[in-house]
Amino acid sequence: AMLDLPFLPFCALLGGLGFLCVAFVSAWCQHWRGGFSLDGSSRTFNWHPVLMVTGLVVLYGAAALVYRLPQAWRGPKLPWKVLHGSLALAAFVLAVLGLAAVFRFHNEHGTPNMYSLHSWLGLATVLLFSCQWLAGFSAFLLPWAPAWLRALYKPVHVFFGSTILLLSVASCVSGINEKLFFSLKNGTMDYKQLPAEAVFANTLGLLIVLFGVLVLGALARPSWKRPDADSPDSCQVPILLLEH
Amino acid sequence: AMLDLPFLPFCALLGGLGFLCVAFVSAWCQHWRGGFSLDGSSRTFNWHPVLMVTGLVVLYGAAALVYRLPQAWRGPKLPWKVLHGSLALAAFVLAVLGLAAVFRFHNEHGTPNMYSLHSWLGLATVLLFSCQWLAGFSAFLLPWAPAWLRALYKPVHVFFGSTILLLSVASCVSGINEKLFFSLKNGTMDYKQLPAEAVFANTLGLLIVLFGVLVLGALARPSWKRPDADSPDSCQVPILLLEH
Repeated sequence: AMLDLPFLPFCALLGGLGFLCVAFVSAWCQHWRGGFSLDGSSRTFNWHPVLMVTGLVVLYGAAALVYRLPQAWRGPKLPWKVLHGSLALAAFVLAVLGLAAVFRFHNEHGTPNMYSLHSWLGLATVLLFSCQWLAGFSAFLLPWAPAWLRALYKPVHVFFGSTILLLSVASCVSGINEKLFFSLKNGTMDYKQLPAEAVFANTLGLLIVLFGVLVLGALARPSWKRPDADSPDSCQVPILLLEH
Repeated sequence: AMLDLPFLPFCALLGGLGFLCVAFVSAWCQHWRGGFSLDGSSRTFNWHPVLMVTGLVVLYGAAALVYRLPQAWRGPKLPWKVLHGSLALAAFVLAVLGLAAVFRFHNEHGTPNMYSLHSWLGLATVLLFSCQWLAGFSAFLLPWAPAWLRALYKPVHVFFGSTILLLSVASCVSGINEKLFFSLKNGTMDYKQLPAEAVFANTLGLLIVLFGVLVLGALARPSWKRPDADSPDSCQVPILLLEH
């Protein structure tokens, strides 16, 4: 009971933390990495971390939490489905632009694509996300899926929803770590000497992890789940029977 | 219902996957990184990935899943608590030895400790784990904690249990990625050329992520949770009332 904090103050805190993640990654790329451009240089690469953190972490987290809003528990579900799907689509578009930024940069410099564990994990995340969005759209927004199929697919969609966020966070951490080893490599600016940029970007990594953990914790919290008759873990049916 | 796979076959699969993770990380260090020793060289460092994957991922995952065994649902709870605490303690000891291996290697070579995001996240994981173990031991195994305190702390312990595994997985991924950039840096053996070692260790990273996701999914699965009167998300009370 003491721990049963309300969802909306938590949301405000989470929104602030998400904003901080976007501000930190933008400030890192602007202040220490030369800012942004579309010319194929490292200033094009800089869009990659900003778009990935904004899309695959912050917007994705917002999309995942739509059904935890108490407002979404009552009335017609369709507007909330549309909001959930739209936020997820926006997150996906930013992720694809984020991929385009890094591929453009690599191709311009003759650097191979897709060799590091970071790139494998990151691409797997975006591919899983594309399957998740298409399957979710087909099953829950298009009117053709029968109820039994929706009920069967729903826990799978929920499971992959959390999984994709976990993969996003692990991709971000490995990407920030890798970028700092690439960028900070001489003298007093060596990563090993922990210059201001390293402290700042390491902190960004920890903020992203904290954001991801809080979203995953909120998603797993039973008392914040939308009471839903078609959810297999719902206590709604016995409780309704008890009230008779 | 179709998706309600039984826990024990899942456990066998997970055990196989955990074994594969340990085998992969050991084979990587033995075959490509020169094997193991205690002389402070890179062969001492090699204990670091092996101990971390074995302790903070595989043994930790086993400890986390103890209460999902159907055998643990009936009879006295104490033996299962002791098993859970012992596996977690074994995981913690391996993690501390894993830290000792990397600090020894750094100190021997005059390399600073604790500068990379990987090191920050990894140390945060081990520190959180130490708090988690001590608090769990004090609250649930020592006989002095009152029932209300146990009930209050239990969801916190469960939340941090999943969180620490997530942090472990993110630490492993960033660590493998970083180690490959350190080790593979010339000619045809450059990480960018994706030599056999890179494919092997990248695959190890993906196997670790898969193991972590499956453990976290199993922990979150409502039908595999131990029915417990002191659990806030339990359906046990209404169901018992219904049977009258």
